[in-house]
Amino acid sequence: MGTSNKQLLLISYTNGLPTPDHFTLADAAVPNCNDNCILVRNHYLSADPAQKGWMTDVANYARAELGEPMKALAVGEVIESRLEGFAVGDFVTGWFGWQEYAHVNLEQIIRKVDPAQAPVQTSLGVLGINGLTAYIALEDILAPRAGETLLVSSAAGAVGSIVGQLARAKGCNVVGLTGSEEKVRLAREEFGYHGAINYKTADLASALKAACPEGIDAYFDNVGGGIADTVFENMNARGRIAQVGTASVASWDPVPVGPRRERQVLVKELRHQGFVIFNHEHRFEQALQALAAMIQRGQLRYREEIYEGLEQAPLALEKLYAGDNLGKTLIKLVE
Amino acid sequence: MGTSNKQLLLISYTNGLPTPDHFTLADAAVPNCNDNCILVRNHYLSADPAQKGWMTDVANYARAELGEPMKALAVGEVIESRLEGFAVGDFVTGWFGWQEYAHVNLEQIIRKVDPAQAPVQTSLGVLGINGLTAYIALEDILAPRAGETLLVSSAAGAVGSIVGQLARAKGCNVVGLTGSEEKVRLAREEFGYHGAINYKTADLASALKAACPEGIDAYFDNVGGGIADTVFENMNARGRIAQVGTASVASWDPVPVGPRRERQVLVKELRHQGFVIFNHEHRFEQALQALAAMIQRGQLRYREEIYEGLEQAPLALEKLYAGDNLGKTLIKLVE
Repeated sequence: MGTSNKQLLLISYTNGLPTPDHFTLADAAVPNCNDNCILVRNHYLSADPAQKGWMTDVANYARAELGEPMKALAVGEVIESRLEGFAVGDFVTGWFGWQEYAHVNLEQIIRKVDPAQAPVQTSLGVLGINGLTAYIALEDILAPRAGETLLVSSAAGAVGSIVGQLARAKGCNVVGLTGSEEKVRLAREEFGYHGAINYKTADLASALKAACPEGIDAYFDNVGGGIADTVFENMNARGRIAQVGTASVASWDPVPVGPRRERQVLVKELRHQGFVIFNHEHRFEQALQALAAMIQRGQLRYREEIYEGLEQAPLALEKLYAGDNLGKTLIKLVE
Repeated sequence: MGTSNKQLLLISYTNGLPTPDHFTLADAAVPNCNDNCILVRNHYLSADPAQKGWMTDVANYARAELGEPMKALAVGEVIESRLEGFAVGDFVTGWFGWQEYAHVNLEQIIRKVDPAQAPVQTSLGVLGINGLTAYIALEDILAPRAGETLLVSSAAGAVGSIVGQLARAKGCNVVGLTGSEEKVRLAREEFGYHGAINYKTADLASALKAACPEGIDAYFDNVGGGIADTVFENMNARGRIAQVGTASVASWDPVPVGPRRERQVLVKELRHQGFVIFNHEHRFEQALQALAAMIQRGQLRYREEIYEGLEQAPLALEKLYAGDNLGKTLIKLVE
């Protein structure tokens, strides 16, 4: 154990995009381990699109605290335990924050991680909230049938890359939206997409008509905004839209305006439904088993974008919002 | 039978509100009755908010034809029949248009009407698309539980007046939005509402907070637009919104703008779903039985606003959009 615990503290809220200016590096003492707690040495930290929402001071489903290590998921090794069921050497994932060492109670732990099943950092990605989000929102909201056309935004991202493969396995025609030629290629060649559109260079309305000649039955939306407006116009009757992220909208204060969608919703009987993974814990076990089985059979590919060292975390997050990531963004702390 | 068939022909489409200028009165011959058809003498014509949508030349779920009698529901008596199962003297409801006599085939007939069960014009209202819309959208989309708060717009209208009573019978706290003090009173005293708000005079955001102190779990929305924007902000987590009408939005060409709602949908996991009654015919029989049973037990009140004579139909429709109706708007042709 080191003598100090390096941390990245959140120092200001923002209604825009997070930048390194919102954080400061600090040194704290490694805490003692209290009753009913464990001390974890973080091996990997997660950078997630949802962190932007946690850094706003407007109402949200979760919020990071000023002066504390940035709220984040992580995976690490138990190095001291006074909590029943957790032993030194166990790997665990949970709300451990952007820091080297985390002193946490049972509520902050999501689950134990088996290093024999898959590399531990997959507990932050394909076997973590990204995979769970892909699987559960797809199954429980979109419920696509074989032969239907499913569209996914952020198609090459940590969530979208899994959605594509899961939907293809269900027999859907799967089309992805993404922001570079490299990601278009990846979506098609690695992530199961039958078609992929670079929304930055294509005329989106005509590209959608070409890629989805029978219209769109289900839309897994990670971005919202103007892209979603065009998608709504191309939804089929009784189409479903899962709102899983709003990454294309930089700020919600003030709330931006856009074309009203209620007529589309009405005349086509669309169903537009929000999804926050942390409300679906009762579904985690079944979903993790299904995802792990696919990985073990070699049926699920994933990519990792790894930054080395705690001090890289703000940059990793900034790059994520710039769309420069391919797959899951991780910060590696321990060799 | 008269020698002529007076008709109200649609002479122009509109993206705004229908006015008498969009129709012209014409005289046609009463048609002969062909094989597999019936000749119906209309007793009551219906004026429905949905007719505005059928008069636009943009894509919709249904459209009225220029130069033809205005597309409308009606109820009347069979005066000649060459269709198996239908006899002279039977009452029927269906797509008979704004005219005195309709020559129709089986596809244009919705159902036979039993005058012993309830006055025949109820087949256009509480036992017609209004009651069916109220019942089915409430059951299948909103599915409110006892103790939940349900909000209804156009609360004193042909649909909303039924929703209020059905939801109260389910044990919900039912709150209505409507546009006059007289309708507020009617909503409370006749249609089952625990609370009602005059949205034209109230500060809607604070009035909603006062009338729905525990937030809104379900919203039966007949109006859309700015009223719905304020409602979305007051929805509870996992709230449901049924989009049944968009009466507050005068035109969809061009599509008006409003505050983006996808962040609300996401963080509160809202479900916003459209409803067009004509896609739910498989539910009609059960719903009609339930509604008729409530009427026979005296548990369901309804109001009718009756205009006399075919030539009043355009005025009746205009008044409907002006919000001057109390209950179901009908045009009576036969004493």
